[in-house]
Amino acid sequence: MKDLTTGKPLLMPADLKLVEGVLARQPRALAKAITLAESTRPDHQARAGAVLDKLLPSTGKSIRLGISGAPGAGKSTFIEALGVHLIGLGKRVAVLAVDPSSAISGGSILGDKTRMERLCQEKDAFIRPSPSHGSLGGVAEKTREAMLICEAAGYDVVLIETVGVGQSETTVAGMSDMFVLVQLPNAGDDLQAIKKGIIELADIIVVNKADIDPKAAAIARGQISGALGLLRSASPHWRPPVMEASAATNKGIDAFWAEVEKYARVMAETGEFQARRRRQAVDWMWAMIDGGLRARFRQHPRVRRDLDPVVAAVAGGEQSPSAAAYQLLGYLDA
Amino acid sequence: MKDLTTGKPLLMPADLKLVEGVLARQPRALAKAITLAESTRPDHQARAGAVLDKLLPSTGKSIRLGISGAPGAGKSTFIEALGVHLIGLGKRVAVLAVDPSSAISGGSILGDKTRMERLCQEKDAFIRPSPSHGSLGGVAEKTREAMLICEAAGYDVVLIETVGVGQSETTVAGMSDMFVLVQLPNAGDDLQAIKKGIIELADIIVVNKADIDPKAAAIARGQISGALGLLRSASPHWRPPVMEASAATNKGIDAFWAEVEKYARVMAETGEFQARRRRQAVDWMWAMIDGGLRARFRQHPRVRRDLDPVVAAVAGGEQSPSAAAYQLLGYLDA
Repeated sequence: MKDLTTGKPLLMPADLKLVEGVLARQPRALAKAITLAESTRPDHQARAGAVLDKLLPSTGKSIRLGISGAPGAGKSTFIEALGVHLIGLGKRVAVLAVDPSSAISGGSILGDKTRMERLCQEKDAFIRPSPSHGSLGGVAEKTREAMLICEAAGYDVVLIETVGVGQSETTVAGMSDMFVLVQLPNAGDDLQAIKKGIIELADIIVVNKADIDPKAAAIARGQISGALGLLRSASPHWRPPVMEASAATNKGIDAFWAEVEKYARVMAETGEFQARRRRQAVDWMWAMIDGGLRARFRQHPRVRRDLDPVVAAVAGGEQSPSAAAYQLLGYLDA
Repeated sequence: MKDLTTGKPLLMPADLKLVEGVLARQPRALAKAITLAESTRPDHQARAGAVLDKLLPSTGKSIRLGISGAPGAGKSTFIEALGVHLIGLGKRVAVLAVDPSSAISGGSILGDKTRMERLCQEKDAFIRPSPSHGSLGGVAEKTREAMLICEAAGYDVVLIETVGVGQSETTVAGMSDMFVLVQLPNAGDDLQAIKKGIIELADIIVVNKADIDPKAAAIARGQISGALGLLRSASPHWRPPVMEASAATNKGIDAFWAEVEKYARVMAETGEFQARRRRQAVDWMWAMIDGGLRARFRQHPRVRRDLDPVVAAVAGGEQSPSAAAYQLLGYLDA
């Protein structure tokens, strides 16, 4: 169903109940709304769009933390310790994940809920594994929608975990207010793991498992600070701090959260907080439009027929990229 | 004129003469072909596509060097010294530029030919300023086509200069076999200037003007090597070297070129040279297709009417990015 004047999808009665359930903070409605948003069926997508539009005025009040780090850095333990700490402060916490590799491996971060045993038992925590199908763009799109739905359901903090697969960190940084990098205290190895551009995305860096070898943690902290010194800060008002923590023994978690609150305060005062969200929303719209245009392009019968041989000709140097693009785009006008 | 079975544009008789002129290495035909490629007129673009297709079998034999560096680092002096050195070795050298700022400033790198006085007088050198209109994508597209035309005209080395404006380094690295970063020997200042991600693109780094302060140059070289040590190499077979040079006094130019030849040899032996070119060509085709799809989208009457208010609604949090994308893409089906 579409509104004939605006072209926007209309809300069906059943979905209106779903919206009311989410706003009333019913866990079942929340899970159902996210499942609707994750569906790839075109009719579901239209309905999810209408649900999201209706929920939108109730979103945007949480703080969105992106959390990344190499496998073994202790991201899950850190998220669990942070989540339990926040619930102790009277906050409601949602944990989501972006893991484009789950479609291949079958597994998924957060898929194994036993990894966060304590947090799972808290009624003020909501944990949702990564959508397990689609490209990074598709997975991220679903996660962003799940984040908005969680906000409408009154979660104060949304934690978005990601693994270091391809561009997933950039994608998660592009949907969070603050991007957290969790690092191991193995000075040498760890710096090798500071992969292309990821450290530059970080608004705060946590050297986790600092209690195992305090000396190594201090060295790692110094080296990371040094590496950060070579980079230009993303904000003129924030120099990313490097902190030590030990999630397993709960050390440094309160200091970490105090730093997050300080960041949110500074960014709000300078207007950067809202500016970053506005920019993210518009970038997101364009990413979805570009993705939609690319999908429509690939579905064109003549493009479907010729794309593979044309790509092969371009790769083989037999056709110029511009002539190939000109040829394929020309099919749309034929 | 289009071939009715392939949809490809056909070569007009006048343009066939142009192709023959380029292959015969006539400077006038070369300049004319590049001017045709730079034109934004749709009929010129179609003709340029046909010309490029015809020239394509004669391209790909040069080595393509991207050259970047902050203003004042001495890029032009370095390029001139390198160009003269290469001509001394019996090579033909083309110098192009990507400067998306020229459309705003009116000026253009390489626009003032007197900057390369010696090289201008060499009959085996061809110097072409940056196209002075369009977005970075547009400017880069024209430069890439100019590069192919120069290759067809028998230039052995194509040097592509760029300034540090936005994403221009990434764009130039994406069209060259080897990306050269020219740095100043001011240790402290210079490291501040190692901006986001640019050092990671470099296949070789030149500390220029090393003769002015040899001690500072040595320190800068050490610091840059240290910074490179934190990054993952793009190739398992090449660790980007940091070299000192003094273009004004011709020092280090022969050693630099020896390093370029070594790089080309190693990359060719491991197959990475051709793999990089193939990847670049396919990426380029997709960038042009995405650009073309975006342009068509923006031209749709209902998109033109609603895009600005929809973007404002998304930025203001009144409409979700997905609902906005869904609405605008829906216009294409109406």
